[in-house]
Formats: sequence, C-alpha cells, structure tokens
Amino acid sequence: MTIENLINYTLHLADNTLIMGHRNSEWCGHGPVLEQDIAISNIALDSIGQARNFYQYAAQLTGNDTTEDHLAYLRDAIDFKNCLLVELPNGDWGQTVLRQFFFSVYQYYFYRALQQSSDQQLAAIAEKSLKEVTYHVRWSSEWVIRLGDGTQESKNRMLNAIDALWGFTGELFQPADYEELAIKEGYGVNPAMIQNSWFEKIRSVFAEATLPLPENTWMQSGGKLGKHTEHLGYILAEMQFLQRAYPNSVW
Amino acid sequence: MTIENLINYTLHLADNTLIMGHRNSEWCGHGPVLEQDIAISNIALDSIGQARNFYQYAAQLTGNDTTEDHLAYLRDAIDFKNCLLVELPNGDWGQTVLRQFFFSVYQYYFYRALQQSSDQQLAAIAEKSLKEVTYHVRWSSEWVIRLGDGTQESKNRMLNAIDALWGFTGELFQPADYEELAIKEGYGVNPAMIQNSWFEKIRSVFAEATLPLPENTWMQSGGKLGKHTEHLGYILAEMQFLQRAYPNSVW
Repeated sequence: MTIENLINYTLHLADNTLIMGHRNSEWCGHGPVLEQDIAISNIALDSIGQARNFYQYAAQLTGNDTTEDHLAYLRDAIDFKNCLLVELPNGDWGQTVLRQFFFSVYQYYFYRALQQSSDQQLAAIAEKSLKEVTYHVRWSSEWVIRLGDGTQESKNRMLNAIDALWGFTGELFQPADYEELAIKEGYGVNPAMIQNSWFEKIRSVFAEATLPLPENTWMQSGGKLGKHTEHLGYILAEMQFLQRAYPNSVW
Repeated sequence: MTIENLINYTLHLADNTLIMGHRNSEWCGHGPVLEQDIAISNIALDSIGQARNFYQYAAQLTGNDTTEDHLAYLRDAIDFKNCLLVELPNGDWGQTVLRQFFFSVYQYYFYRALQQSSDQQLAAIAEKSLKEVTYHVRWSSEWVIRLGDGTQESKNRMLNAIDALWGFTGELFQPADYEELAIKEGYGVNPAMIQNSWFEKIRSVFAEATLPLPENTWMQSGGKLGKHTEHLGYILAEMQFLQRAYPNSVW
C-alpha cells in the first residue's frame, strides 16, 4: 500500500467536506429565518468537523509536524481535491438546499460504504459522520420538496437551481486516479457503485417535489484532480487569510 | 519634522487610491458596455499607479529594504488608513459612478492643494496625478448627469446610490491625527479647506442631473484611523493572497 495515495485519498475526503462546510458557513447570519439560519450553520459545523477528522488523519500520515491547519490553510487551489459541486456559489436558498441535497445523498451512500474500508481510521470517521449526514439528507430533502412543490416562484427557483447544478453531479461518480488506487488496495469506495442508489433517491424526492429529472447532459469535472472553477480561489483567499497573514497562529 | 508622521500621511494617500483602484478593477470584464469597461479599468489603473508612487515613497522613507509590495500586501486592515468611502462595495453601475464622482472631486481639490506641499516628492506626485483625476471627474460627472437626468429607473438608482454613499463623504474632510500634524508641519493639506469647493461642484453637477442634495445627515468615519467596515477585510484577503501565499514572489 502506498502511504502517499492514502494521504491523497484522505485529503480528497477532507477537502470535499471542508469546502462544503465553508460555503454553508457563508449563510451564517443571512438565513431566511432564524431557525434555518441555525440549521444551515449547524450543517456547516458538522461538515467542518468531518473535515477536521480527515485532515488530522492525513496530517498524522504525513508526519514532519504537519497539522490539520497546514493542510486546510496552506495549500493552494491546485492542491485541493474537492469536487466542483461544493465550491459553486451559494446562489439563492433554493440553489443552496439543492446543492446540499445532491451532496448529502452522495455522502450518505459514500460513508455507508466507507464504513467497510480496510483502513480502520477511515471506517471510523465514516461511521461517525454518517449520523450527521443522515440528518443533512432529511433536512435538504424536505426543503427540495417544500420549494419544488410550493409556489410558482419557488418552483422556478428550483428549476433554475437544477439547471445550475446538475452538470456538476457527474463528477461525484467518476473515480480520480487516487480513488482507483484506493479501491484496488481495499480502503477506498468505488463511487460508480453508489451512483444508482444516489440517482434513485434523487428520482424519488424529485417526484414528490414535482420537479423534472434533467435529461442526460454533459457533465463538468476536474475538481478532484485540482482543476477548479475560479470560485475556489476566492474561497481560499478568504478562508486562508488568517493563517497566511499570521503564520502558525493558534487559538 | 517627524519622519514617522510623513510615512503615515503618505500611506493614507496610498491606501485611499489603492483601495479605490482595487474596487474599480472588480468591474474589469463586467462593465455595462465595452467602452465603459475599458474606461473604468483605465481609471482603476490610474488609481493603482498613483498608489504605487505613494507606496514607493513611503517605502523609501521607511528603509530596511521595505518595498511598495510590503506596504500594499503585508499590512492588515487595522493598519490601512483609507477612508471608508473607497472600500464600499461597487453596488450597481450608478453606485460605482457616484462613488467615483464623490471621490474624484475630492482628489481633484486635494491634489491641487498638495502641489503646494513643502515636501517635494508629495508635490510632484500630486501634480502628476492631477491630470488623471481631472479626467476622472469629467467622466464620473457625465455619468451622474446621464443617469440622474435619464429614465425613472436610472434616476431611482442614483437616488439609492446617494442614500448608500452620502453618509461616507463627511470623513473625507475630517483630518486624522497624522493629517493635523502634516498640516502643522507644512507638507499636508487641510481637507476642511477644500470642503466648500467639493460641495459646490457636487451641487452644480447634481443640479444638472436633477438630483436632490441630501439633507445634512450623520456622517460615518473611522477608516482613516484604521477602523474599517467588514468589506476591507474581504478586499485584502483577495488582494493580498498571492503575496501572502508566495512571500517575496516577483514578476
């Protein structure tokens, strides 16, 4: 087993959930109603907490006094391995909840499978995270249904959100090189294996939400390989400012 | 004469025009029509060029191998001495051109007076900058008139812009401590002395634009003393990323 690949694989999982968490944290204080402001902020905290577990593990594997902070705050965009979906702008509330729905359903089936990883640490983080993600799926499903089967205005917003996001869901299921090696070596999940479950869940919630399933469309990819949209650079500039400006600062 | 105060005074002038330039640079590629996209980008370049002249002078006064890059890219928000007006978000095109108008008219009278500075370097930069600012005043005046005396929609946008910006104009004319000392020592301009000229120009252009002069309102201040809106932090995070992430990088 190559330790370097295990590190890259773990960083991919960490980056995915860190960037997702950061995007949701932008809603803090701006949610449509107080209860939902708190809900989305809690989901952000869950995601960042999962990222910390993965980063801590990756730091331990890396050695040389590397810490979770180095990995989150001192790598540049080209080193980030998150999928493009999580770095997209929040848009309106409809776009945010749809992105969360797409990603949480993915995480749900992914973590469920990762519990069987031959790597005990990854399996343990997956088990812990799964409880949180189960709630994220429920929360975001309810919002998709409420807005999709709501007023004409809320439905239009969901239709726009589907247009904006659908083309970024394909990347979730295309294994990157480090995923392929991780699958081969027994500690990684084959994302292609969970695509049907993901799709069935989307189909069923969309049906209840009276939202149409998109036709097959061209899918954008690249994020998992470090080829990001311009949005990630702005996220990192803001997120990494403190550690870049005051290196090695601690709480 | 205290060299430290001359440095602070020069940094104030540099920060003002750097942040103004950075805000305008955000329009690059997003202007309403190509010609105006180029115009606002050129104005941004003028402003950043003025900032470079001031930073280079401040760096020379500071010594210790300090460069213009250190001063622009490695100071934090609390050290920045720009007025609040220039760090406000661009808003729509109306808000951007009104901010430019308020600030360019200020710079016009300010630089005209600064040409008489006992400090030869400041006087020379002022003389050079005045030519550029004269054009900025003309350009922004024309836009204020065009939108103010345009359609109902464009007029409403200008009225909203006045509401958003007026309360930040007062700070321009309240001398900060380093300005007071600079005035006393003969190299600084008393901004209170140019307030009437500024107001007369605003009044005359607003009259032509059929825009109402705001009633006296409470004026926000603090930026010149390092007490900034939250917006400056985001500007610096983005603007300083490269130098923070890759220290001492050069072109």
